[in-house]
Amino acid sequence: MSKHIIIIGAVALGPKVACRLRRLDPDINITVIDRDNLISYGGCGIPYYIGGDITDIEALFSTTSHAIRDPEFFRTCKGIKIIPRVEALTINRTDKSILVRHLEQDTEETLTYDKLVIASGATPVRPPIPGADLPRVFTVSNLHSAKHIKDMISTGGVGKAVVIGAGAIGIEMAEALTDLWGVETTIVEMADQVLPQALGKNIARIVENQLEESGVKVILSQQVTQIQGTSETGVTAVQIGETTMDCDLVVLSAGVRPNTKFASDSGLAVGRSGALLVDRNLKTTDPDIYAGGDCIEMRNLVSGGNMTMPLGSLANRQGRIIANNIHGRAAQFKGTVGTFCIKVFELGAATAGLTVAQAKTAGFDPVHALVAQFDRAHFYPDSKFMFIQLIADRSTRKILGVEAIGEQADAVKARVDAIAPLLGAGLDVDDVCVLETGYAPPFASAMDVINNAGNVLDNILEGRNTPIDMLDFITLFKKEAIQVLDLREPSEAAPFIEKYGNRWLNIPQAELRQRFEELPRDQNLYLICGTGARSYESQVFLNQQGFKQVKNIQGGSAVLSVTDPDFALT
Amino acid sequence: MSKHIIIIGAVALGPKVACRLRRLDPDINITVIDRDNLISYGGCGIPYYIGGDITDIEALFSTTSHAIRDPEFFRTCKGIKIIPRVEALTINRTDKSILVRHLEQDTEETLTYDKLVIASGATPVRPPIPGADLPRVFTVSNLHSAKHIKDMISTGGVGKAVVIGAGAIGIEMAEALTDLWGVETTIVEMADQVLPQALGKNIARIVENQLEESGVKVILSQQVTQIQGTSETGVTAVQIGETTMDCDLVVLSAGVRPNTKFASDSGLAVGRSGALLVDRNLKTTDPDIYAGGDCIEMRNLVSGGNMTMPLGSLANRQGRIIANNIHGRAAQFKGTVGTFCIKVFELGAATAGLTVAQAKTAGFDPVHALVAQFDRAHFYPDSKFMFIQLIADRSTRKILGVEAIGEQADAVKARVDAIAPLLGAGLDVDDVCVLETGYAPPFASAMDVINNAGNVLDNILEGRNTPIDMLDFITLFKKEAIQVLDLREPSEAAPFIEKYGNRWLNIPQAELRQRFEELPRDQNLYLICGTGARSYESQVFLNQQGFKQVKNIQGGSAVLSVTDPDFALT
Repeated sequence: MSKHIIIIGAVALGPKVACRLRRLDPDINITVIDRDNLISYGGCGIPYYIGGDITDIEALFSTTSHAIRDPEFFRTCKGIKIIPRVEALTINRTDKSILVRHLEQDTEETLTYDKLVIASGATPVRPPIPGADLPRVFTVSNLHSAKHIKDMISTGGVGKAVVIGAGAIGIEMAEALTDLWGVETTIVEMADQVLPQALGKNIARIVENQLEESGVKVILSQQVTQIQGTSETGVTAVQIGETTMDCDLVVLSAGVRPNTKFASDSGLAVGRSGALLVDRNLKTTDPDIYAGGDCIEMRNLVSGGNMTMPLGSLANRQGRIIANNIHGRAAQFKGTVGTFCIKVFELGAATAGLTVAQAKTAGFDPVHALVAQFDRAHFYPDSKFMFIQLIADRSTRKILGVEAIGEQADAVKARVDAIAPLLGAGLDVDDVCVLETGYAPPFASAMDVINNAGNVLDNILEGRNTPIDMLDFITLFKKEAIQVLDLREPSEAAPFIEKYGNRWLNIPQAELRQRFEELPRDQNLYLICGTGARSYESQVFLNQQGFKQVKNIQGGSAVLSVTDPDFALT
Repeated sequence: MSKHIIIIGAVALGPKVACRLRRLDPDINITVIDRDNLISYGGCGIPYYIGGDITDIEALFSTTSHAIRDPEFFRTCKGIKIIPRVEALTINRTDKSILVRHLEQDTEETLTYDKLVIASGATPVRPPIPGADLPRVFTVSNLHSAKHIKDMISTGGVGKAVVIGAGAIGIEMAEALTDLWGVETTIVEMADQVLPQALGKNIARIVENQLEESGVKVILSQQVTQIQGTSETGVTAVQIGETTMDCDLVVLSAGVRPNTKFASDSGLAVGRSGALLVDRNLKTTDPDIYAGGDCIEMRNLVSGGNMTMPLGSLANRQGRIIANNIHGRAAQFKGTVGTFCIKVFELGAATAGLTVAQAKTAGFDPVHALVAQFDRAHFYPDSKFMFIQLIADRSTRKILGVEAIGEQADAVKARVDAIAPLLGAGLDVDDVCVLETGYAPPFASAMDVINNAGNVLDNILEGRNTPIDMLDFITLFKKEAIQVLDLREPSEAAPFIEKYGNRWLNIPQAELRQRFEELPRDQNLYLICGTGARSYESQVFLNQQGFKQVKNIQGGSAVLSVTDPDFALT
């Protein structure tokens, strides 16, 4: 008799396991259940549906050839039985059975399995804020709420919105509300930066600046303490500290919680996040039960710790591995380096590995370089600035993380993707200096920004480049009368000299070898140029002339201008 | 007394060595010589200057901050002495001196060195075709010839052009001539495909199709045997086999030859290509002489053999390594995997590692997968098809090469760059299946095309996917009355059924499980769908039903339609 496989969850990992298994074995008995009636959908596309990039919600559960991925599709095309509107209640591991409830009929049934796959996903957290259950307060959890939000916005029912949480979904939703619909949107984030799980502060600040420039108000380091309104009016305002802010819609994007209660109740081990613990074969602590996707903890290959990461890409890759293992072909999922990317209005951002803060928490001694450079040959017409932060451990020189942002989103992703797959293998700074990526003028500089980031980080680790972090510089400059030396041409330095007077000196780099004796030797000098290249070269020269208190402002005016509106170029 | 470093060549590697050395050591004595008066230029930008993407030739020898990189710039900004119009004649390795000629003054001088760096580059080959020295026959060798060509075109002097050689420069020049200037351009290539060094035939065919669609005539497997004209008229026609083709301009892009005669005459070892042999520290066979850039052979990290690869990106990375080594900080350049990218009108193509043909020559048993998939989530508005060919060795499953092409060039580069840095480290097929690259709908599918290419190749290696190569299919279909089974919807299959009658059956995938008994079991069946996914699934199903002669057409209609105009979608 052929084996019976039960799969709990039919969104991403579940169908992938089922379809792969069917191809591997025509006779195996596969049943997939899901609480919802809409299955196998691209949940990560919801913000683009709400924002109008995707007109028709069916696109999110259709194949590339426009077939609707419903149970009928899985039956006829894939040979898979999917039963919707069925909830898993308990697992009886001794009997190898699960008790389920048919939600429409309100009946219970016991299903037996040879192997069980838990693909139950995660549910958005509804934070314990008074009023969080009012009408017009949404989580972005499934296609039903997505349709509800869009129907409301598209009929003109929303003028002002508050998004609680500046993670990926919060930012994508803020863009969706603002960009097409012109909803006046505010993001409230309790951390002191946006995307606190994904980005360090330098790149996050560029994202915040972009959000503000695009009309999204960003409130950091604060919490919504109350959501006001009645069950008739729905939400009318939120309370943020002392401030009351009117709004017609609240989007809760405060993270997700893995759907694992029925599994942990049966004695399967979970980690601190509440997600299931699995081994490299994606087996839970019961050898007949596999799990994957948003409901498991994975090993972070850089920090060595465990993490959750709700991404359809990980779920799909894991699905194939679980199917292989069930079929008896050993396959492994070793972990993740947390690769992540996001579009934020005109910018694309991508990251992999640890931020400086995460690296410190994990016990490393992180050193970072922040480099600004054109993404194509600088003479190529549509070349744009890209900003890359590269982070290494001081003593081992191993790369801990990389973050990048720029206008040409695919080009940003290209740089991070060239590093990400190597992060788990102990790539070091020297490897990045010679990292071999494609070169032609429409694609890159001859010395690509990623190699340059390696070179700069190497120079910093060797003590040749003595940088000051951009945010530290801005804070210091606003607090103290520190001395800046601008190495650019007079026309470029002029607006800053006009604004800051003799705090902002200008000696073009070409004149520095003649004029360096004009400079004070007894005070700190903060060197700036367009991107950090000329200021580095000048810093080295001044060091060679005996100047000891010279700091190179990382990323130069290119980064400064997109980090703080006070320094925006006009 | 400080050391004296002489650097021969001031285009890419030479200035990089000099500037890095100056930053490492303020006292070291550095002299750079070059035959030309124009130095430190981006030679790879020449086609874009000729094609009008770059208006001003000075952009090719300016910094990102618009400073002209002339000897004065290097003196004032970099502290480097560059002497233009000086040619290296001989190296006297016993005395550690070089004899040079000042070309303007026509005088000779002996310069002594402690360390010598050879960065003499390469010169375009002028093939031994009668008439190759006629006026209006150009190599794309330096800014002087670039300016000459552009002046001629922009004054309307060119109606028809012939480009000899379909390497990168040949194709970039063909695009430059056609796109802006509307010159009627023909490329003649002696190999049976374009870009024979870089691409396998499948992807090359897509490039050829794009060139033809963009108005460039491509003639393969033929040679120009004579260039006709007089010294007064310049070129008037070329002879290709029996055909005479009128033209006003000939561009020779038949490869380059390393400028190493003066070096090999002094006893430095060269490889079969004539380029210098260097060790991992980029030292020649003389411990006081380093070399890098277009005049050296590098180790191909996939094949283990030696190769030349004239790319500014390699030269720049090598320059920093040579400077480090001269300064006493050991640094290594281990080799290259031949990463390459090119823009061809609306397409971007990228590649790394070996083609199928190169892999065979190197003694591997290559197996390839050709995958068509959208570069973003398929529901995201601007998603476009990308085509990836992934090649592995049959027995070891090690990845030997990857090629990709698509409309969104940065996205194409992102996929190849995610593989390229791992190629030298023995990446295998399973690693590609789980390769961790960034995911969000505006950037990728949840199962990205690169992971999918790994999955398909795994399925082929395991014998589950039994493909026929796209070009083999086209050849066979045009020669024999083979039976195609189209798994798409009737509306998609209809134009093919109309054209090919009962040679082109149609059973939509959703009906196959009911209707498979209609199919003949005693003849070969060639399965096609949109991209190869449904045809694979159907092939597996038919195999499971006992059909033994079923082949899956790799890449489906998506690849077929851009490979052969006979199958273009209307």
